[in-house]
Amino acid sequence: MGDDMGFKGSQYEEVRQLYSSRGFGGRVGFGERPAILVIDLARWWLDQGSPLGSDQYATVENTCKVLYSGRDARVPIIFTTMGFDSYQSELLGPLPKKKPHFVHPSFVRGSEWMSLDPRLGRRLDEILIEKPRASAFWGTPLLSYLTARHIDTVIITGCSTSGCIRATAESSFNHQFHTIVVREAVGDRSPFAHEYNLVEIDLRYADVTHLAEVLKYLSGLPSNQR
Amino acid sequence: MGDDMGFKGSQYEEVRQLYSSRGFGGRVGFGERPAILVIDLARWWLDQGSPLGSDQYATVENTCKVLYSGRDARVPIIFTTMGFDSYQSELLGPLPKKKPHFVHPSFVRGSEWMSLDPRLGRRLDEILIEKPRASAFWGTPLLSYLTARHIDTVIITGCSTSGCIRATAESSFNHQFHTIVVREAVGDRSPFAHEYNLVEIDLRYADVTHLAEVLKYLSGLPSNQR
Amino acid sequence: MGDDMGFKGSQYEEVRQLYSSRGFGGRVGFGERPAILVIDLARWWLDQGSPLGSDQYATVENTCKVLYSGRDARVPIIFTTMGFDSYQSELLGPLPKKKPHFVHPSFVRGSEWMSLDPRLGRRLDEILIEKPRASAFWGTPLLSYLTARHIDTVIITGCSTSGCIRATAESSFNHQFHTIVVREAVGDRSPFAHEYNLVEIDLRYADVTHLAEVLKYLSGLPSNQR
Amino acid sequence: MGDDMGFKGSQYEEVRQLYSSRGFGGRVGFGERPAILVIDLARWWLDQGSPLGSDQYATVENTCKVLYSGRDARVPIIFTTMGFDSYQSELLGPLPKKKPHFVHPSFVRGSEWMSLDPRLGRRLDEILIEKPRASAFWGTPLLSYLTARHIDTVIITGCSTSGCIRATAESSFNHQFHTIVVREAVGDRSPFAHEYNLVEIDLRYADVTHLAEVLKYLSGLPSNQR
Repeated sequence: MGDDMGFKGSQYEEVRQLYSSRGFGGRVGFGERPAILVIDLARWWLDQGSPLGSDQYATVENTCKVLYSGRDARVPIIFTTMGFDSYQSELLGPLPKKKPHFVHPSFVRGSEWMSLDPRLGRRLDEILIEKPRASAFWGTPLLSYLTARHIDTVIITGCSTSGCIRATAESSFNHQFHTIVVREAVGDRSPFAHEYNLVEIDLRYADVTHLAEVLKYLSGLPSNQR
Repeated sequence: MGDDMGFKGSQYEEVRQLYSSRGFGGRVGFGERPAILVIDLARWWLDQGSPLGSDQYATVENTCKVLYSGRDARVPIIFTTMGFDSYQSELLGPLPKKKPHFVHPSFVRGSEWMSLDPRLGRRLDEILIEKPRASAFWGTPLLSYLTARHIDTVIITGCSTSGCIRATAESSFNHQFHTIVVREAVGDRSPFAHEYNLVEIDLRYADVTHLAEVLKYLSGLPSNQR
Repeated sequence: MGDDMGFKGSQYEEVRQLYSSRGFGGRVGFGERPAILVIDLARWWLDQGSPLGSDQYATVENTCKVLYSGRDARVPIIFTTMGFDSYQSELLGPLPKKKPHFVHPSFVRGSEWMSLDPRLGRRLDEILIEKPRASAFWGTPLLSYLTARHIDTVIITGCSTSGCIRATAESSFNHQFHTIVVREAVGDRSPFAHEYNLVEIDLRYADVTHLAEVLKYLSGLPSNQR
Repeated sequence: MGDDMGFKGSQYEEVRQLYSSRGFGGRVGFGERPAILVIDLARWWLDQGSPLGSDQYATVENTCKVLYSGRDARVPIIFTTMGFDSYQSELLGPLPKKKPHFVHPSFVRGSEWMSLDPRLGRRLDEILIEKPRASAFWGTPLLSYLTARHIDTVIITGCSTSGCIRATAESSFNHQFHTIVVREAVGDRSPFAHEYNLVEIDLRYADVTHLAEVLKYLSGLPSNQR
C-alpha cells in the first residue's frame, strides 16, 4: 500500500511504520496463473434487513469489475457462501456460543439468504463453496481446486475484511500463493475494522492492491489461460 | 471482556459495540480438560537486540504464573518456537517476500535465537513444536496432541497478539476447542495492535480472559487431570 | 482379529504373521465416547445397475444393527456420500483421469444416485457429509464434528473396504481416535480386496472388530452419552 | 502397469481386472514440473538389525538412479524420515498401541537410526522432513513446499509400499498432483504386500511406472527446471 491511503496521522500509521521498520510488509506481487476468490457476497451479508447485513454496494460493484476482467482473461473464479444444516447438528460446541448468528434460522445451507448476489452473475462452471468457517480453505476442497489449475496467485474480494477476508488471506499465504486483496473490492460493516485490518493483512499476509492495478494485471494476461 | 479494560471512548470501543450488537463476542467459557499453549516465547521475540524483539517482560512473567498453576493441576503444556532450514530451501516463494525476517541467519531451526526463554522452565515431557507459520496448528501435528489427550479447552499465552496469537486462536476455534487467550499473558510489539486485536479475537474466536480468572480455573481443576 | 477369520494357509496370513512379528497390529480397543461413521451406503455403490454397484446386502443389514444400538445409546451418527458439481468444474486435473467414474452424469452432488439407502433410516439430526475423496476427513469439517462432541472412538461401517474404508480408517488413526472397523458391516466389490485390506487395516490403522463385540460395547455404554 | 509384471493368474490379477472393468486405474501421466519424494530410506527401515529393517538394496539403488537424473534436471528433491520426542509425550493415545515400535528407544527424532542412508547423498539444499505419520503430507508443511515451487507432479520412491508409500500416494492424489510411484524404487518387507498394494495404488491413486520410463521423462525435461 502506498502513502495515498489516508492513514497518515492515524494510529494505523503507527502500526504500519513500526512493523514495516522491522521488515514486515514486503511486496510479493502477482504471479502468472491467478484465480479470483469472491468471499460471501450473499444476501445475508449484503441485505441491510439481515442481522449481519451492511452496505456493501461498492464492494459488490468493484468485485463485478474484477469478475468482468477475469472472465475476459479466462481466469478461474470461485465463490463462497456459508450455511449449516437446518437441524444444527453441525453446530454443537463452542462455535455458536461465540457466534450466535450461526444458529439463526436463515443461516442454513442453501437458504435464500445464503444465495449469491445476482449482480455477480455467477456462471454455472464457476465453483461455489459452502464454507463452514471464516477461511475459505478450512474444511473445504478449495486448495485442490487451485492445485488442479496450477494457480499461483489468489485474488480476493468480498467481505468482511476483519473476518473472512483476513482469515482467507492468511490461509492463502500459508499455502504459498501470491495473495492479493483488492482494496476497493473488500468491505466490512465497520470502517475502522476495515481500514485497520487492511494494514495488518498487508503487513503479514497479502498485498493489499488497488483495483486499478488488479484490472491492469488481468487485462495484460495471455488470453490462453487455463 | 468487561468494561474495565480502558477501551472506553476509543475507536476499539466502537468496533466492539458494533459487532456485539450484531451478536458477535458470545462467551464460550472453560471446558473440562484444558491444555496450555505457549506461543513463541523465544529469544528472537524477547531480546530487544533481535530484529523482532520487544519488551515482553510481563508476557513472560504472567505466562510463568499460568504454567505454575497448570503444572500443579497436571495440565498438558505445549510450547512453540519457529525456524527454517539454514539453506532456506523451505523458504522459496511468497513467504520470505512478505516477511523478510524469515531469511535472517538467526531464523534457523534449533538456533540459539529460537530457544525458549529459560524462565519458562520447560520440562522435558512438555512438547516443543517448531511451527512454520503463525498458527501453531498449521503444518504441525498439534491437533493430534490435543485429541490424544481428550483436550476440550486451549489456553493461549505468548506473542504476538496480532500475529501468532490471533492466528492460533482462530485455528483452535475452528477445531471446536474452548479457546481462552490470557489477557495479561499475551503481548505485541505495538500496544495499539495488541489492544485492538484482543477486541477482534474476543469478538470472533476466543474468550479474552483475565489472568486471575484463568488461575482460579486451573486451581479448581480435579487434581487427577492427565 | 482372532484366528477364526479363515485366513489360515492363505497369503493374507503370511503378511499378518510377518507384520505382527515386527510389532504391528497392536490392540487399541474402545474408548469412552464413540461416534458411528457410515461410509457411502448410497445407491451408486449399492445398486447393481450402477457402474460401481455391487451386492452389499450384508453390509447394509449389519450397519443397520450398529445404527439401532447406537441410537439406543445416543451415540452420534454421521453419514457420508459423494458427488461433484454437474458442470465438473470441481473435477479438472488428475482426479477424473485416475477415476473416470467421477465424471459419470450420475456422480453429481445431490443426485438420486448419491442419496443414502432408505434402510439406514437417517434421522434429520444425523449429519450427512458429501465428501470429495476416499477419506471422509479430507476436505470436509468432519474432524470438528468429532471434537465438538468430545469423541474419542470412531466406529466405521460401509464401503468399500479397499478404498474409502481404509482411507477413512487411516485418517481417523492419524488424528488419534480409537478406530474400529466393523468386520461384518464393511464390504468391497472384490472379496479378495476386502479380506486383504482388512488384514492391513488391522495391522496399521484400526481394530477390525466383530459386529457382536461392537454391539456389546454399544449396549454397555452409559445412556447419558452426549 | 503393463502385462509384464507377473501378475497373471494370481489373485492380484482378479482384483485388477474387476476394478479396471469398472473404470478404475486410468492413466494420469506426467505433468511438467516434477518433484521427487523419497520416503523413509533411513537405517531404521534398511538395516536388517533393526526391528523393522528389511532388505531394500534394490529400492535404494533404484532411488539413487532417480536422484541422479533428477539432480541433472534440477528437479526439487525432498526426503522424509520419522521420529518422535525421546520422552514420548508426542506418543500418548492410540498411536503406539497400534504400532508399538513407535516407542522403541531408537524411534527418536534425530537419532542415528533415523538418519538417511548415505548412499542417497542428500545435499544440504534438499529438504528433509521428519514426518509423524505414514503420509508425508500429514502434520507437515510438505504441501507448501510443492506449491511454492509450482510442482504438478510428485514422483515417489522409498518404503514401505503397503504403508508410507500408499498413504503418501493417496495424499498426493487428493491434492491433485500427477502422482507417480516408481515401481522398482519402492519396497516392502513382504513381497506379497508389495505387489498387491502396487495394484491397488495403481487402480486408485498413482500411476505405478517403471524406472526406465521415469528416467526417460526426467532426462527429457527442459534443463531450466528450478
